[in-house]
Amino acid sequence: MVSSRADCLRLDEGDPLRDLRSLFDLPEGVVYLDGNSLGALPRATAVRVVSAVNDEWGRGLIRSWNTAGWITLPARVGDKIARIIGADPGEVVVADSTSVNLFKVLSAALSMAAVDAPGRRVILSERHNFPTDLYIARSLARERGCELALCDGPDEIEARLEQGSVAVLMLTHVNYRTGRLHDLRALTARAHRCGALALWDLAHSAGAVPLALKADEADFAVGCGYKYLNGGPGAPAFAWVHPRHAERFEQPLSGWMGHAEPFAFTTEYRPAPGIARYLCGTPAVLAMTALECGVDTVLAADLGTLRRKSLALADLFIELAEDRCAGHGLVLATPRTHALRGSQASFTRAEGGHAIMQALIARNVIGDFRAPDLLRFGFTPLYTRFVDVWDGVEQLREVLDSGEWQESRFQARAAVT
Amino acid sequence: MVSSRADCLRLDEGDPLRDLRSLFDLPEGVVYLDGNSLGALPRATAVRVVSAVNDEWGRGLIRSWNTAGWITLPARVGDKIARIIGADPGEVVVADSTSVNLFKVLSAALSMAAVDAPGRRVILSERHNFPTDLYIARSLARERGCELALCDGPDEIEARLEQGSVAVLMLTHVNYRTGRLHDLRALTARAHRCGALALWDLAHSAGAVPLALKADEADFAVGCGYKYLNGGPGAPAFAWVHPRHAERFEQPLSGWMGHAEPFAFTTEYRPAPGIARYLCGTPAVLAMTALECGVDTVLAADLGTLRRKSLALADLFIELAEDRCAGHGLVLATPRTHALRGSQASFTRAEGGHAIMQALIARNVIGDFRAPDLLRFGFTPLYTRFVDVWDGVEQLREVLDSGEWQESRFQARAAVT
Repeated sequence: MVSSRADCLRLDEGDPLRDLRSLFDLPEGVVYLDGNSLGALPRATAVRVVSAVNDEWGRGLIRSWNTAGWITLPARVGDKIARIIGADPGEVVVADSTSVNLFKVLSAALSMAAVDAPGRRVILSERHNFPTDLYIARSLARERGCELALCDGPDEIEARLEQGSVAVLMLTHVNYRTGRLHDLRALTARAHRCGALALWDLAHSAGAVPLALKADEADFAVGCGYKYLNGGPGAPAFAWVHPRHAERFEQPLSGWMGHAEPFAFTTEYRPAPGIARYLCGTPAVLAMTALECGVDTVLAADLGTLRRKSLALADLFIELAEDRCAGHGLVLATPRTHALRGSQASFTRAEGGHAIMQALIARNVIGDFRAPDLLRFGFTPLYTRFVDVWDGVEQLREVLDSGEWQESRFQARAAVT
Repeated sequence: MVSSRADCLRLDEGDPLRDLRSLFDLPEGVVYLDGNSLGALPRATAVRVVSAVNDEWGRGLIRSWNTAGWITLPARVGDKIARIIGADPGEVVVADSTSVNLFKVLSAALSMAAVDAPGRRVILSERHNFPTDLYIARSLARERGCELALCDGPDEIEARLEQGSVAVLMLTHVNYRTGRLHDLRALTARAHRCGALALWDLAHSAGAVPLALKADEADFAVGCGYKYLNGGPGAPAFAWVHPRHAERFEQPLSGWMGHAEPFAFTTEYRPAPGIARYLCGTPAVLAMTALECGVDTVLAADLGTLRRKSLALADLFIELAEDRCAGHGLVLATPRTHALRGSQASFTRAEGGHAIMQALIARNVIGDFRAPDLLRFGFTPLYTRFVDVWDGVEQLREVLDSGEWQESRFQARAAVT
């Protein structure tokens, strides 16, 4: 039982991951609990990016496509991410954004379903999936004459799968609001038994929870580079397709980098073997260079150890917040059960959530607010300490006890909330 | 008449753009004639990118979406590009790659045509358009039940337009191989008279030739950030839609950044007003920061002066190469007429083109080779000097006179040619 800041300092001392915090360049005095939205800056990144700018681009110029290996970046960084998500080398590419990659893999999944199970015209997802996933799915559903059906929670998903007609089950593994974690293996198996394909968005799980995509027999996956992979703001995303499907279909964003021979400059598109056909335009070299540094920070840790610390941090945050902020109307939105939780803790509050978060940020404790009523705190065991949890909750308590969040300076809404 | 290196040095002295070369960090002793493939590094870029990494990301963390204006980057850099392509503020966004943006605008164009001219099912382009444009067009044609028809040259294009049934004329303004420049205004007008929309890929013209997209009544345009805009390897691309069309249709890559209220996190997609609906995923902040530095270098010049110098550089290169490399089988592939030329000079050679370019690069004169037989030299008046043209041709002459390109070390093909 933790009852003081000193207890937290002791936990940090015994933390097997404690040395990894030095891989990051974190501002002094800030408690950063938003790595689930934007991962912190690895120390290696600035030097590596400057070298890519000055040496590779500046000195090497166009030659660096070969000499600096720029052309291999999508596959090379993809291979590193493969180790994090339980895939094999050659199965992952880094490219574009999560939204664009979702468009690619969902297109391919619908094309497959149209051949293998032509009566199935439903994309099944969750009402509280991240909106961009729903927007992309609805757009593709319209294009392909399919339907997007939305459920609330796993029970409803299973029931809807049993009704038949589902072509693709498209879920985000960890919910961006509640942090609720789906059982990827079980839901994939259920989808398969019901004749549907399983497509997973790993935005809030890659680098945060152990993944075994291939062993769990998932069909398609996409994920984000700028959250737990620490790739920097707007970092490129990744796509994985199970090798049994990878060559069955082209995806419609058939740009030259997905061609079997991009530099043959042929008029006809001939898709590259395997996952490379999920590339489209010219690789974003500087952004992928930064992403590689971020991915390396995750590879420096054992994912099982990361997971254990992540759960301990969130357990402590929940326990302290419920204890020390009691009576202030915070309602836990994240499952307490470990098997149902990603790497965050969220609370709803009937009113003032946005202003409370602004007041907390003014005190250098950074979480985020998600409309309409959610305060969200993410834990990145690579750099989040137990003492950060203590300090974060203490500041939250002071914001609530003092009522300072009601001051007018915390009421304004910025462009990004 | 230029007959010596000293003549070229005198031309450089009288060049009104000569001071702009100092905006770039160019390697000593290199003659860089490949800015049409990858623009050179602006001096401002490294410092600006390091500040984005260390200060904005590292210190500001998630707060920088507001405090550092990250969220406005696609529009802010878009507004700068608008000045280069003859569009108005608020009409251009920076996002994704050229291929992905082409998919967006061609989708919208086909949707418009399906409503306004339902009998028209043809996308008309050129056989020697850049392959990625053809791949994307063919993919969309398949998706929409349309047909991609390919012409050779402007006469055939005009004749095909007259036959009717063309929904969208999709052309690259300056051909990547020959450097041939289309008459954007005349072909757009012809397309409109024939009931077709005009979509322009400005990859090889934005920053290289004066453009007046809006005055010329073009309908859609996309372009590249890493060529004449000097945005760095794989820089984000841009999209422009004439304001009379911008709000008529959504595009299918309907990601959250194109939503009217991305941070309302609503289940239903509601497209943003105007060009913002052509955004998709989270902006690539580091890459857009680098791109902004590149765009600023172009804005430092007068585009008319740039154009005059570009034509003079290419005229000189052609004249010197034909004179000093006579008898070596180089055949000019670029039109001599100024009105028909972008900012490059290309030569075909029956054999050995690839090896000749490798030998030239080994002598620090950097152009590029495009299969099967093209030697390509680009001129970027911001940093290319007349003396570079002289030195480049002299080295080419020595490569050819000596026959050194036939050595085995120049025969190997790298991944990127």
